[in-house]
Amino acid sequence: MATATTRSGKPLDRPVMESMLRRRMFYTPAYEIYGGVSGLFDYGPPGCSLQANIIDLWRKHFVLEEDMLEVDCSVLTPHEVFKTSGHVDKFADWMCKDPKTGEIFRADHLVEEVLEARLKGDKEARGQKIEEKEEEDCNKKNKKKKVKEIKVVKLDDATVQEYEEVLAKIDNYDGPELGMLINKYGIKNPATNGDLEPPIAFNLMFQTAIGPSGNLAGYLRPETAQGQFLNFAKLLEFNQQAMPFASASIGKSYRNEISPRSGLLRVREFLMAEIEHFVDPESGKKHSRFHEVKDVELRLLNRETQLSGRTEVETMPIGKAVEIGLVDNETLGYFLARIKLFLEKIGVDQSKLRFRQHMANEMAHYAADCWDAELLTSYGWIECVGCADRSAYDLSVHAKKTGAPLVVRQTRAEPLKIEEWQIDLDKKKFGPRFKKDGKTVEAAVLALTQEQRETFAGQLKANGKIVVEVPGVADGNVELGSDLVTIEKRTRVENTREYIPNVIEPSFGIGRILYSLMEHVYWTREGDEARGILSFPPPVAPTKVLLVPLSTNPEFTPIVRRLSHYLRSVGISNRVDDSSASIGKRYARNDELGTALGITVDFQTVKDGSVTLRDRDTTKQVRGSEEQIVDAIKKLVDGQETWADVLKRLPEYEGQQNVD
Amino acid sequence: MATATTRSGKPLDRPVMESMLRRRMFYTPAYEIYGGVSGLFDYGPPGCSLQANIIDLWRKHFVLEEDMLEVDCSVLTPHEVFKTSGHVDKFADWMCKDPKTGEIFRADHLVEEVLEARLKGDKEARGQKIEEKEEEDCNKKNKKKKVKEIKVVKLDDATVQEYEEVLAKIDNYDGPELGMLINKYGIKNPATNGDLEPPIAFNLMFQTAIGPSGNLAGYLRPETAQGQFLNFAKLLEFNQQAMPFASASIGKSYRNEISPRSGLLRVREFLMAEIEHFVDPESGKKHSRFHEVKDVELRLLNRETQLSGRTEVETMPIGKAVEIGLVDNETLGYFLARIKLFLEKIGVDQSKLRFRQHMANEMAHYAADCWDAELLTSYGWIECVGCADRSAYDLSVHAKKTGAPLVVRQTRAEPLKIEEWQIDLDKKKFGPRFKKDGKTVEAAVLALTQEQRETFAGQLKANGKIVVEVPGVADGNVELGSDLVTIEKRTRVENTREYIPNVIEPSFGIGRILYSLMEHVYWTREGDEARGILSFPPPVAPTKVLLVPLSTNPEFTPIVRRLSHYLRSVGISNRVDDSSASIGKRYARNDELGTALGITVDFQTVKDGSVTLRDRDTTKQVRGSEEQIVDAIKKLVDGQETWADVLKRLPEYEGQQNVD
Repeated sequence: MATATTRSGKPLDRPVMESMLRRRMFYTPAYEIYGGVSGLFDYGPPGCSLQANIIDLWRKHFVLEEDMLEVDCSVLTPHEVFKTSGHVDKFADWMCKDPKTGEIFRADHLVEEVLEARLKGDKEARGQKIEEKEEEDCNKKNKKKKVKEIKVVKLDDATVQEYEEVLAKIDNYDGPELGMLINKYGIKNPATNGDLEPPIAFNLMFQTAIGPSGNLAGYLRPETAQGQFLNFAKLLEFNQQAMPFASASIGKSYRNEISPRSGLLRVREFLMAEIEHFVDPESGKKHSRFHEVKDVELRLLNRETQLSGRTEVETMPIGKAVEIGLVDNETLGYFLARIKLFLEKIGVDQSKLRFRQHMANEMAHYAADCWDAELLTSYGWIECVGCADRSAYDLSVHAKKTGAPLVVRQTRAEPLKIEEWQIDLDKKKFGPRFKKDGKTVEAAVLALTQEQRETFAGQLKANGKIVVEVPGVADGNVELGSDLVTIEKRTRVENTREYIPNVIEPSFGIGRILYSLMEHVYWTREGDEARGILSFPPPVAPTKVLLVPLSTNPEFTPIVRRLSHYLRSVGISNRVDDSSASIGKRYARNDELGTALGITVDFQTVKDGSVTLRDRDTTKQVRGSEEQIVDAIKKLVDGQETWADVLKRLPEYEGQQNVD
Repeated sequence: MATATTRSGKPLDRPVMESMLRRRMFYTPAYEIYGGVSGLFDYGPPGCSLQANIIDLWRKHFVLEEDMLEVDCSVLTPHEVFKTSGHVDKFADWMCKDPKTGEIFRADHLVEEVLEARLKGDKEARGQKIEEKEEEDCNKKNKKKKVKEIKVVKLDDATVQEYEEVLAKIDNYDGPELGMLINKYGIKNPATNGDLEPPIAFNLMFQTAIGPSGNLAGYLRPETAQGQFLNFAKLLEFNQQAMPFASASIGKSYRNEISPRSGLLRVREFLMAEIEHFVDPESGKKHSRFHEVKDVELRLLNRETQLSGRTEVETMPIGKAVEIGLVDNETLGYFLARIKLFLEKIGVDQSKLRFRQHMANEMAHYAADCWDAELLTSYGWIECVGCADRSAYDLSVHAKKTGAPLVVRQTRAEPLKIEEWQIDLDKKKFGPRFKKDGKTVEAAVLALTQEQRETFAGQLKANGKIVVEVPGVADGNVELGSDLVTIEKRTRVENTREYIPNVIEPSFGIGRILYSLMEHVYWTREGDEARGILSFPPPVAPTKVLLVPLSTNPEFTPIVRRLSHYLRSVGISNRVDDSSASIGKRYARNDELGTALGITVDFQTVKDGSVTLRDRDTTKQVRGSEEQIVDAIKKLVDGQETWADVLKRLPEYEGQQNVD
């Protein structure tokens, strides 16, 4: 794996790039004039537009393409929902407190940082070069380091190996295990060397109170999924009972991170786009369109490789990965391929994309399989899309808690015949005999399992009576004679099948994708390293076209205004820069904004109406009539043509017009 | 004013309409299987799509059309920001508690309901017919009435008049005034007749704690505006220092309503779209594009009419309203007209739109003028868009609190010469003389006003010394001789002007617009009252086209699939209904979903490729080639053509194909 690089393969200087992104207002720390709040960011105009374009393509690629049912559910969620889903008890990170200073550390990050620092110190002691490579392999999540100072101390070989193994599995430890590591390796507060308390779970949900009485506890959702599950019965009805189908949702979610860091990558408020694809568990989770993607090649990092402390990827077609059982089923495989195609479409560098399988402890206990699409950035490999098989877990727990029928009812092609022990009660005698306890006794009898029924049937035949355990009635045992109860083996015919669907969930962190994409498309021109360029593909570029009059000559003004209006009317966002800066400067500013194309209006335009069109990445220009140029722009923006196609059709313009 | 009506002018049966909207999953109470939480709703697929389309048009109509700077700011906001903006102290409603039952009432709503109920009882006692009219004029906000029972009691004429006047001004009372009304009119808990505690302020912001220590208090924003103000300096820089300009933001906001009611109209979580237009207060708030809208006619309900207890609107061109000073300035007027045009575009019934001016107590103390665009619904007139002149208030308070320069600096065309009293201090002597108090004394002296300086200059000349009040130093008075201080009148030349911009803020409640629009476009066909129709204009219709094969004949399948794919590729959302239901039934279902158009594939299609296109509102059909029909659809969906235009071009089809 290489050092983080720019689009042109040079080493990426993150501070320089970030300074440009903030200067151009792609994003900015929220509440900066108030000192800021960590983990909260605002998107400025280009960031906001980039986000809207990514979302727009996402909606077309997933929702429209597959007729998904998009919903928009509440962020505020009452306690009971997340109690049932398990989030109240389990949606937590492990934190350690330094009781002296009051500082709070996220336990896994602390272990990671301290061991990494020791390994570096060891390398230095051994006189080895510290390669950037390691920076990335392991430091997945940390910046703003707690460990400020690397001590040059040689470790013995066994310790080095042990540390490396721990780091490769760092996501696999729970709280008590992290506590053991902290003890075993003598990890302290790096700043003060003070002792730390054992890790305790910190719930990551933001809590609030709903309503004026303050009695109804609520949370800000940490994922959009639950709203989709709770509406399952209505969505199925909306879909006219047809299975399989998917719902989708785009919206903000919230996680009260212990110590947010890594800029836009670990934040407390973020935009998610989630799909819940509901399938029949008995269908083998086949997917009707799997054949369309089976040849798509993915770079896969499987579970076993990670557990052996390594990170090599294997490239194979998704068809094969499903066939050999590496990816659990077709539906999961279908979405992995579709995710790759989406990321490709928005401009992600394919050599910086891998799919990593979750290790056992990383997955929820109910999950059948889970893969993350990870993007390589200067912060290491970042999880940007999760794709999990959540089985029937969520629908089951909500159905159980509320009694709502979150199930699919399907007429059986062939009626199912079931042999079973059935119980009949003589209701007329039942009431007078048990009075107020009648219902309780009845319920207890009808709750008997098939095995118990078989046994009781035998007893009833033999003794003419049975004794059934009924807690709370008489001494807890109730005698029933054959005058009251009959138990017989009969055949029941079931025409309808009822099942709880399984769920495959592709879940996108839009902010993480957006940031990683910016790193992937960032570069600088040879000899002009002070100015950056963001080579977004035209469909996602924040602004599509920059309109520049050659000078402030008033003859250009009406032409530029008309062109701008016309482009807008055909849905192409554009900005006019009629400032007195040189054309070169105006273009350079827009290269930093990632504006895909530029139109220059010059004296030739006044004469014959022709304009030039500039490509941001090559800085080459073509000249054509207004119609030809607008047509070319439309095709580029819709993703139907590339600049190479345009160059073939329209004459290149090499005038001196845009010299700085 | 008429009773709430459907699009075809019939009385609107709200329960029937709402039942249809919920059956078709436009929206649904959130967490319904858990019993629901009042004030929280989810949008199902058609509601979600309708919302996305309204937002899309909003973005085109406002943001793109005027090159506004769209931002996406954090919802989570630290305490200090809302303390400064005044929300912590003032963003509250008045609530009354019944100490016996613990019930909580919103004070203004309670007064309103009780007085209305008494007026009704009076009418009954007088034997007058209770007109629906009153239901609307006054009951703006209430459903789920607290007052269950109308007592038939005749009131004297003076009381009737008094009640009516109170109701017309109900939005104008503060907490103590509401408390006085409650006492004066003997208003009690309507259910128990129990006494109520005096109104207390209940802050409407949801509170939470940010970070693991729980020390940083935060709120969910109740409006998107503050994020835009806090970023003002960066936005101005992004706009290359050019004024005026506008920022815009679309996002969720939260208000912890005391007792949410009226369905989608008063909710705790809602989508807003807000514009902050920054202008130079010395520009007269002119707007360069005002001439484009000056002839747009608006129905205006001014402040004076309301204060006299009436509600008549006056229709006039916005140009005149600004000219006569009814609307404060051109920029405010420009946006009122643009709001009207936007509402028209999405299909709002123009006869159910009025602009109501705020009364004095309704406005924030700093606001210069404020108008609400109100839409008439079965709940009465509903505020859907607010358009306020917030003056320089927000930028000023944040600048003052943080020291951030939220100002515009402008080179003066002509330098400004200012005659003023200037103070010079002899710093060398100052230090030794005052020691540690030096800074304090210096600050006190430099803080003197021009008037004080003039007086002191005289004293200094006369006595050779002055005595300045400096709290905390010596006995609070400090003597300064002319060796230490000089005060002289001099001329200062100012080349740069610095000012805090004023803000005009159009603020849209998207959920309220969406609901009101649904009421405006809802109707039923003569003789088929059981089935509803939602006549959304094609640009906002949730789904544009329904594709129906005439029957389940397999010959139709590939044609329908190809058509669907083709429409999608040109950006037109469509759904296929190939169920075995009759064509009539399939169309009726989609009329309820508001699907604008329908294509039928029949045996003729198999022969010659032609298809029919059905208009939802007239149920008329035309027939044409695939290209002709898709072209017509595009033009309808882009709002370039109407169905009447299509009927002129393509032959009407009157086959029996779609008979139920």
